[in-house]
Amino acid sequence: MGGQSCLGGGLRSLSAFLVRTCKWFQISSCHATKPDMLNVHLVPHTHDDVGWLKTVDQYYYGDRNDIQHAGVQYILDSVVDQLLKNPDRRFIYVETAFFYRWWKRQDSSMKQTVQQLVNEGRLEFVNGGWCMSDEATTHYSAVIDQMTMGLRFLNDTFGVCGRPRVAWHIDPFGHAREHASMFAQMGYDGFFFGRLDYQDRYQRMMQKEQELLWRASDSLTPPMADLFTGILPNGYNPPDGFCWDQSCSDPPIRDDPDLEDYNVDDVVKRFLNIASAQSMVYKTNHIIMTMGSDFQYENANLWYKNLDKLIHYVNAQQDLGSRVNVLYSTPSCYLQELHRANLTWALKTDDFFPYADDAHDFWTGYFSSRPALKRYERLSNSNLQTCNQLEVLGGPTSTNGPFGKGDSQTMKKAMAVAQHHDAVSGTEKQHVANDYARRLATGWQHCQVLVSNGLAVLSGSTAQRFYCDYLNISVCPLTESINVYNPLGRPVTWPVRLPVNGTAYAVSDAAGTSVDCQVSFAVNELVFEVQAPPLGFSTYSVSLLQDGPLAASTQPRTPTAIQNKVPTHGFINYKNRMIRRGNNNILFSCLNPVCCVFRYNASDGNNSESIQPSGAYIFRPNSSTPFLISSTAKTEFIQTSVVQEVRQWFSPWVSQVVRLYAHSRTLELEWTVGPLPIHDDLGKEVITRIDTSIESSEIFYTDSNGREVLQRKKDFRPTWHLKQSEPIAGNYYPINSRAYIKDDVDQLTVVTDRSQGGSSIHNGSLEIMLHRRLLYDDVRGVAEPLNETSAIFPEGLVVRGRLLLSLDRPASAADKHRPLAQEMVLQPLLTFTDGDLHPDFSGLQAALPPAVHLLTLTQWDAQSVLLRLEHQFQSWESDVNSKPVTVNLQHSQTATIPLGCMSLVHRGVVFNVQKIKL
Amino acid sequence: MGGQSCLGGGLRSLSAFLVRTCKWFQISSCHATKPDMLNVHLVPHTHDDVGWLKTVDQYYYGDRNDIQHAGVQYILDSVVDQLLKNPDRRFIYVETAFFYRWWKRQDSSMKQTVQQLVNEGRLEFVNGGWCMSDEATTHYSAVIDQMTMGLRFLNDTFGVCGRPRVAWHIDPFGHAREHASMFAQMGYDGFFFGRLDYQDRYQRMMQKEQELLWRASDSLTPPMADLFTGILPNGYNPPDGFCWDQSCSDPPIRDDPDLEDYNVDDVVKRFLNIASAQSMVYKTNHIIMTMGSDFQYENANLWYKNLDKLIHYVNAQQDLGSRVNVLYSTPSCYLQELHRANLTWALKTDDFFPYADDAHDFWTGYFSSRPALKRYERLSNSNLQTCNQLEVLGGPTSTNGPFGKGDSQTMKKAMAVAQHHDAVSGTEKQHVANDYARRLATGWQHCQVLVSNGLAVLSGSTAQRFYCDYLNISVCPLTESINVYNPLGRPVTWPVRLPVNGTAYAVSDAAGTSVDCQVSFAVNELVFEVQAPPLGFSTYSVSLLQDGPLAASTQPRTPTAIQNKVPTHGFINYKNRMIRRGNNNILFSCLNPVCCVFRYNASDGNNSESIQPSGAYIFRPNSSTPFLISSTAKTEFIQTSVVQEVRQWFSPWVSQVVRLYAHSRTLELEWTVGPLPIHDDLGKEVITRIDTSIESSEIFYTDSNGREVLQRKKDFRPTWHLKQSEPIAGNYYPINSRAYIKDDVDQLTVVTDRSQGGSSIHNGSLEIMLHRRLLYDDVRGVAEPLNETSAIFPEGLVVRGRLLLSLDRPASAADKHRPLAQEMVLQPLLTFTDGDLHPDFSGLQAALPPAVHLLTLTQWDAQSVLLRLEHQFQSWESDVNSKPVTVNLQHSQTATIPLGCMSLVHRGVVFNVQKIKL
Repeated sequence: MGGQSCLGGGLRSLSAFLVRTCKWFQISSCHATKPDMLNVHLVPHTHDDVGWLKTVDQYYYGDRNDIQHAGVQYILDSVVDQLLKNPDRRFIYVETAFFYRWWKRQDSSMKQTVQQLVNEGRLEFVNGGWCMSDEATTHYSAVIDQMTMGLRFLNDTFGVCGRPRVAWHIDPFGHAREHASMFAQMGYDGFFFGRLDYQDRYQRMMQKEQELLWRASDSLTPPMADLFTGILPNGYNPPDGFCWDQSCSDPPIRDDPDLEDYNVDDVVKRFLNIASAQSMVYKTNHIIMTMGSDFQYENANLWYKNLDKLIHYVNAQQDLGSRVNVLYSTPSCYLQELHRANLTWALKTDDFFPYADDAHDFWTGYFSSRPALKRYERLSNSNLQTCNQLEVLGGPTSTNGPFGKGDSQTMKKAMAVAQHHDAVSGTEKQHVANDYARRLATGWQHCQVLVSNGLAVLSGSTAQRFYCDYLNISVCPLTESINVYNPLGRPVTWPVRLPVNGTAYAVSDAAGTSVDCQVSFAVNELVFEVQAPPLGFSTYSVSLLQDGPLAASTQPRTPTAIQNKVPTHGFINYKNRMIRRGNNNILFSCLNPVCCVFRYNASDGNNSESIQPSGAYIFRPNSSTPFLISSTAKTEFIQTSVVQEVRQWFSPWVSQVVRLYAHSRTLELEWTVGPLPIHDDLGKEVITRIDTSIESSEIFYTDSNGREVLQRKKDFRPTWHLKQSEPIAGNYYPINSRAYIKDDVDQLTVVTDRSQGGSSIHNGSLEIMLHRRLLYDDVRGVAEPLNETSAIFPEGLVVRGRLLLSLDRPASAADKHRPLAQEMVLQPLLTFTDGDLHPDFSGLQAALPPAVHLLTLTQWDAQSVLLRLEHQFQSWESDVNSKPVTVNLQHSQTATIPLGCMSLVHRGVVFNVQKIKL
Repeated sequence: MGGQSCLGGGLRSLSAFLVRTCKWFQISSCHATKPDMLNVHLVPHTHDDVGWLKTVDQYYYGDRNDIQHAGVQYILDSVVDQLLKNPDRRFIYVETAFFYRWWKRQDSSMKQTVQQLVNEGRLEFVNGGWCMSDEATTHYSAVIDQMTMGLRFLNDTFGVCGRPRVAWHIDPFGHAREHASMFAQMGYDGFFFGRLDYQDRYQRMMQKEQELLWRASDSLTPPMADLFTGILPNGYNPPDGFCWDQSCSDPPIRDDPDLEDYNVDDVVKRFLNIASAQSMVYKTNHIIMTMGSDFQYENANLWYKNLDKLIHYVNAQQDLGSRVNVLYSTPSCYLQELHRANLTWALKTDDFFPYADDAHDFWTGYFSSRPALKRYERLSNSNLQTCNQLEVLGGPTSTNGPFGKGDSQTMKKAMAVAQHHDAVSGTEKQHVANDYARRLATGWQHCQVLVSNGLAVLSGSTAQRFYCDYLNISVCPLTESINVYNPLGRPVTWPVRLPVNGTAYAVSDAAGTSVDCQVSFAVNELVFEVQAPPLGFSTYSVSLLQDGPLAASTQPRTPTAIQNKVPTHGFINYKNRMIRRGNNNILFSCLNPVCCVFRYNASDGNNSESIQPSGAYIFRPNSSTPFLISSTAKTEFIQTSVVQEVRQWFSPWVSQVVRLYAHSRTLELEWTVGPLPIHDDLGKEVITRIDTSIESSEIFYTDSNGREVLQRKKDFRPTWHLKQSEPIAGNYYPINSRAYIKDDVDQLTVVTDRSQGGSSIHNGSLEIMLHRRLLYDDVRGVAEPLNETSAIFPEGLVVRGRLLLSLDRPASAADKHRPLAQEMVLQPLLTFTDGDLHPDFSGLQAALPPAVHLLTLTQWDAQSVLLRLEHQFQSWESDVNSKPVTVNLQHSQTATIPLGCMSLVHRGVVFNVQKIKL
């Protein structure tokens, strides 16, 4: 039974670790420390990107070592061997995507050996998700899924001893508050990371605030989202001169006096100096050193042999009066010692965005890098949730049914690796980006079989079912019936746009009622609105009335392009209804056909080594003023009973459709950008900018991983006095699902269809980066310019997307943008089939209350399913919905979901994962 | 008691392996093969240079990995670990210098483990010397010493199971017949190497003669010097696409069908193709593949994991009809299978010099590279033999006596590493060359204490003893007594030249008899001839008669330089005595002051990628005609009662002294070359050329490792039709100790003081390369131009050396050049002391017969010493000495030394090393 905590009674009873009152258990496997000395915790570790310069499988196997020397299979082989050689040694492992690949190839004897190492705390899992997710561009639902996959594997495999106690995000390029909140709610004892703004770090070093308490939610009651957070001293690298991996060239410890260059004295002296300097910027008499880095420990012997010697020789100095004690350790053991110090840590309530490693090096480009991949990942998440739900709703037939064997597992894994901080972030090499996309496509193929089977069960028809995955470019085989599956816990209304060849169609709903529909001849799309029940589907039938090209006489389209003229007829209506500010209309700049799409030219960095170029990671425009794409636009206006829209062509590579559906209160901006021209040898970064008369006073709001919203202020950071050096890039923040500006009267919220970067540079203005094409690498390792082309787009990638704009009163804006954003994330799935079938279905007896989001419904094992319900409103954003809510579960059980709670525990707890039997 | 075999009865009885009748023992640890299939022997191995781009200790530790990634300690750690994981796996290890360093740091449990692996044939030692010696520039005595050191260590450590059965010289740049002869005499079953002339290889591939029988001596009765020799298929590398070391980028075997890029089928197919192609160029149904390379197996897991899979998947094809069987193997196991094939192999009686890897890429430069290091190595060998002898003759006091603790071991090790094929060869980086020299200097410091102690015992005086190591540049502290120690088994007469400040001295010998002496004022040297008894010393006393600068009136020097004029007075005498050809005098061109030193300008290779430059390895002059250094010379003539000499200055950087001592029949050419000018941006390679009227008909002779002499013929190779592409470099051969030309009447022999390259390009002409300075790397890995400078020689190295010329009747020339060359190799050691002492000493009751050379006398252990006596004449070279000889040993035992025999076994055999109790 659910209690008043997010975590639930079951979870609490499992382990006191989950009570966020900082009562850590003592970890018995930790080495003893010396209370009267400086204790240096050496943490051997490897950082194994789940794809970056090579694909995840190339990394696993050590393939393509010509690109980067890295082979994870060998790392795990080697570390296990070396741990066995000396029981003092420790290792932490992080990325379960790799560990899983390795584990399933081991024999039982090796498995037993590893279990023993885990039981004894010599091999410790930290973080433990399938990957180390990106924090800027991932959606919380996908992050939870990937963490679940990793943690579940560890639990199933190793039981309680395999449970990660700390979150470990040493590489992501900035840190989201929502990630910290999730980690806190998952029961981690603490969180360590490596990258933060260089000014922030300097400040924290001076004030000994590199270890802090992060209060990661303004909705959850403390300490529910409180998380101890430690900033590592050298990113995640070893101190200078102490890298003993095969990839390093630091001098090994040469302790054979018979050989030349005996250097023990020198090594010890250097180490003591470094330890002493480090201890000056941390609070306790414990310091941590990360002894490892990217793909290190492939030959762990090099590391351990030298670390053994280091520990031996440094500690031998204690007999001579040294007050430094070195030991093998893990983040958990280090954390335990910090806890024992019983200090008060600085409190942090905002986040760690944006990340800059120097004055002109803001890692804010990747918020928008690879917009097509970012969209495909988001769409895949939607499809996966549908797949998961139908696996539950369709029962066993869904995975083995009339259409063959299907599974959700393939797509779960594909989505899990896509959360990696060089995957959806867009900071991987091109061939790796292709691999992520390919995996998602393969996953979806497996899911399609499952979905077909599941829908066959629910619809009572085994007629073949078609998927039309490329609705924006292909013509779908229009069948008798269109099934609209809605993965949300509430009914949905959704505009359907189907590419067609015909000129006139009739559409009717499940009840046979005719539905208003139109063919948009601008793009040959059949457009109509559908509705679908919660967690279920409805069926629409479409019939062709007139085939062939459109007869001129029937063409309802406004034939004449109008230049430089604000359309005044159709949208008046919209403005009248929606855009009202007291007695004044607010003018959306996006209704002005020539004002809203701009480009930045990228700094090319090529003229001088000291000039940082824009690249996959970094955004650095060569001017703080964006250039208007064009001062004129070709414009068309179309109005039908279903939709009214303005089509604007600013240039051959930038166009936009402003659209308002008949029953909608949101304005849709559909942008099409690309191929970005590069004939001037300048990279381009294209933004759309919405200028309003809202008095936003340089304050704007962006969401964190698609969930809680944080306030941003131009040229300002809440915890230190910012010296701003990049007026544009230094004000960019990640937008996962929405951003808004507001004043006392109005709030303009923009809901995005993917992660994008954005900012508010001017009062009343909100800009969002749509596309980037860059000609230089930004020298952060990827070693490729972000210059996307493909067989389909040899001249450069063309990307299309949607922004939904909503203008509301601030007090009620969330009531609108919360469900709106969820509809964008979990969108209906259309399938096409012939024959008789049950016209509709819902998996819920009733729609969930507005505050409750059906986050997860998926088969857990043969006997149980995992259900996650979420309170989706922040404490301060809605007069109506920002309060606890009670839902009825099966068998008349009820559960109250407190504010800010992500999941409800019903029964049974595995690790940090909550599952429920229906 | 010695028998009629070189190897001796004791040795023969130890092991039938030593009987060279190809009756190999079966090695029980070899994996079974399949007689009806093609058996592919995979031989995992590492090639660990005992110094090259890094010093030997840097290689051992894995220091300076910025230069080259290589750490031998980790290789051995890793290989042992991996061998334990699968009993099928095999590994061979070669360089005992490294293995020794590793072994002494292991605990007893690891030692036991390794012993077990050795006993089971899973770890097999091959070659087993301290290093893999160079074959062109090493002297046989130093090679035997280094082999002894390595093999003894293996025997002491592992007993019979540690005994190497095959010689393994996979990397040296050409192969000397004397090396093969030594290996045969040491009892190796076979010899494998990787490098030979590309034309030779092609020819042998076509004729399936890459496996052959090498008859390596024309003096030893077959099969005493017969050695099966195998040429490896890929040098010593794995076949293309099958390198799985961490240093390689070939695709690993990806056999997890759940991951992308499953490639087992592709790998198997490629492997079968390669095996099939390889089997076409070898005779039997067994082929060998060397699975390793330079410093590989640092992370042996990568190799073995993939090799395990390869074997598994390739052999699995047998069920589908494949006739290929792959197995882990070793060179011994492979050799055993070849023996079982019971075939007749092609016979080879010459050697494998010079080595060319392409038409313009003759590795004949290194014969002369780093002439100063080459001389220092040769001098160090002489000093070491003296040190060894005095350790025996001086008894225990020599290592712990009045001058402290001394040892010969340090210098033995320094000399052993200096034999490596990138050490004395001159093909290492500069800092590594410095390290070899430093080791030799340190070794000599240890030896000096031993020598002082030993001489104190033998001379009865503990007065301090000075060494004047830099006789050619410093002034020695002239003491009352000069001790002249002679390490040869025969008495020696030797010219002494001491740098002095005084103008007149008196010298007397041990009996008090006055010795003729003169101060040469050209260079301020006191010159006199000394004599010393066999294996002992004599003492000379020197007293200053007149101090201070020379009074003008007493100056006996010919003051006027003469230009372009052949000196006619003094050398007439010499010519009359020695240079007679029937009734005609032969004119040595070197008596012509302007004719004998030339330079080649090096090809710089820089104009085009396809042009090979001269470098540390490769000799490639940019013209086939050498340039005379100067057509004029400043010349001085000096004649005293001790010596007459002509001093010639051809240029500021080339001078020469032609010298004839009173009692000598050899002409001495002392050359001084450097700094070679490079202002014209051309590398220089300086030769001295001796043009005579001898009708040599393009035939000349060079020694092999300072021992047997081989006939050379211009533009000719004995076993294939040479297509000559480099008229100079393609005719160069290594000269270790001597070269000669002859006709029916005369033989001109040149004895060198170090290893040098040389040739006879014209009839009657002999040229020897003295010095090289090059501005480009020759792209064979060393990655440094051979451009020697130092603190003393910032403008470029200046080198001085001596050539001894002897003109004789061919039938008796060897009677002269054999002892002459030994005197050059083992030269007297001068020490300086004060006080009363025994005036002389000899360790022998009588001088050894002329044919017998005292090769080795050294302490073996507390109870025994090692004595090697050698028959130093080739079967065909002397009417007098080319016959067996009998010597008396202690206790009236006699032993007859057959022709060509290097050593006499008296009692007790350890491995291939013969030792004898005196």
